[in-house]
Amino acid sequence: MTNTLIRISYDGTNYGGFQIQLNAPTIQEKLECALTVIYKQPVRITGAGRTDSGVHARGQAANFKAPFFIAAEKLPYAINALLPSDIVVTEAVLVHDDFHARYDALGKLYSYTVDQAAFPRTMQRLYSWHMPDPLNLEKMRDAALLFEGTHDFKAFQAAKGQVNDTVRTMSRVEIKDLPGLDVLLFEFEGSGFLYHMVRLLTGTLIRAGKGSLELQEIEATLHNINPTAVGPTAPAHGLCLERVDYQL
Amino acid sequence: MTNTLIRISYDGTNYGGFQIQLNAPTIQEKLECALTVIYKQPVRITGAGRTDSGVHARGQAANFKAPFFIAAEKLPYAINALLPSDIVVTEAVLVHDDFHARYDALGKLYSYTVDQAAFPRTMQRLYSWHMPDPLNLEKMRDAALLFEGTHDFKAFQAAKGQVNDTVRTMSRVEIKDLPGLDVLLFEFEGSGFLYHMVRLLTGTLIRAGKGSLELQEIEATLHNINPTAVGPTAPAHGLCLERVDYQL
Repeated sequence: MTNTLIRISYDGTNYGGFQIQLNAPTIQEKLECALTVIYKQPVRITGAGRTDSGVHARGQAANFKAPFFIAAEKLPYAINALLPSDIVVTEAVLVHDDFHARYDALGKLYSYTVDQAAFPRTMQRLYSWHMPDPLNLEKMRDAALLFEGTHDFKAFQAAKGQVNDTVRTMSRVEIKDLPGLDVLLFEFEGSGFLYHMVRLLTGTLIRAGKGSLELQEIEATLHNINPTAVGPTAPAHGLCLERVDYQL
Repeated sequence: MTNTLIRISYDGTNYGGFQIQLNAPTIQEKLECALTVIYKQPVRITGAGRTDSGVHARGQAANFKAPFFIAAEKLPYAINALLPSDIVVTEAVLVHDDFHARYDALGKLYSYTVDQAAFPRTMQRLYSWHMPDPLNLEKMRDAALLFEGTHDFKAFQAAKGQVNDTVRTMSRVEIKDLPGLDVLLFEFEGSGFLYHMVRLLTGTLIRAGKGSLELQEIEATLHNINPTAVGPTAPAHGLCLERVDYQL
C-alpha cells in the first residue's frame, strides 16, 4: 500500500461540505468515487479537517492508501479527469506509511473575503461576504492583534462542535486591504481551529469595525467573561481554507 | 417619460446572453421583468450591445423610458431587490430624452482572462480560460500592437454576425501579467467591435504566444489575405464587458 498526500482546491458552493454525509454531495465523496474508479477497489481518504457547507478551499489536504503505485506527478491528472470541474487536485506526494492528514497537520491558513463595494460584485458573490457598511480598519486591526498568540477560544466555537480543550494558538491574524479594490482579506494562521472559529472571529472583527464593540469587550471574550461580544457567525461562502502545513 | 441609463454587472454563466431570446433566460429579460414590476407597466430596455451566452459584464449599459420618476440614487436598490443575485444594477443616471445606449456609445472596454496555473483555479473556472501552456508574452504583446489603430477587422468577425463595414479602431490592446498570479489579463479598448471579434483576437494572440503564428501572418490578416491565421475563437466564459463610455 502506498500512502499519498493530495492537495485539493474546490468551490464549495454546490456541496454539503468536505466530509461525507447522507443528505448532500460532498467533496470527500467525489474524491473517493474518483479514486475508487482509478484503483478499481474502494479507496477511503482522510481529510486534514472538515469544511462546512459552502466553504471553499484552495489548499485542502487529504491522504489515502492505495493498493498499487501510480506516479505522483500523473495522479492529479488521472483524478481530475474523473472529478467535476469545481473540484481540482493540484498536487500528489508520496508520504511515509503512517502519515495522517489530520494528526500530522502543523497548522492551517484560512482566508475570509469581505466585499466592501457599494453593490455586490456579481462574479465574487459566491466567494465573499458583501458588507458595504463603512468599517474602521485601524480598530479591526487592533482587535485582530488581541487574537494573536495562545488563548482560550472557548467563546469562539459553535455549540454543535464543542470540544473540551479550547486553547489554540494563532500565529497571525491579519486584515489586508487590497488596494483600489474595496476588498478586505482576513487571514487567520494557526495551529488549530475550533468549529466555526474563523467565522466567529471574522464576525466579531466586523462588529468592532462597525463601532459596536470595544477592544476591552473583545479582550474579555478570551477570558470567557463576555460571550455576548462574540459573533455574529460570518457566512460560510466568504471562507476559504488556503493551506495546510506539514513537515514532510 | 424619464429616460434613464443604468450600468449593470452580471455573471453570464446561467444565461443565454444579454439580449432576449426564446430558448434561454437572458439578462435583458430579467431586467425588463424587474422594471415592469416597479413601474407597473411593460418597460423595454435598450442595451449598449449584446453579449453572448456565458459572457460576463462588470459594466454593461442600457437605457429605458419610464412612465414616472423615481430618484436615480434609489433605483438600483429597487431593481436589485427584484433581480437574481447574479445580475446587479450598480448605477442609474437620468439622461436626456433622445439618449440611446447603443447609438451614443463612444467606446467599450472588454477584458479577457487567461488562467495560466498548472491546474485550473476552481473559483475562477467560470470567469477565465484555463491555458497552462507556456506563452511567449513578449511576442503576444508585439502582436497586440498590430491590432491597435484603425484597421479592417473583416477577418475577425464570426460568420453569423457579418456586417458590411468592418473597419474598427482599437485605441488599446494590452496584455497585463498579474504579478505572482499566473493570470494574463487581455484588455481591448475601442470604438466598436464586430461579432466575436474580441474572442477571435484573443485566440489569435494566444496562438502567437504558443509560437504557431508569426507576426507577419497576423499582419496579413488585417489586409484580408490570410484568414487561416485567425482564431481559434477563445471560449465565452473568459470574456467580460468592463465598461461602456458615453459623453453624458
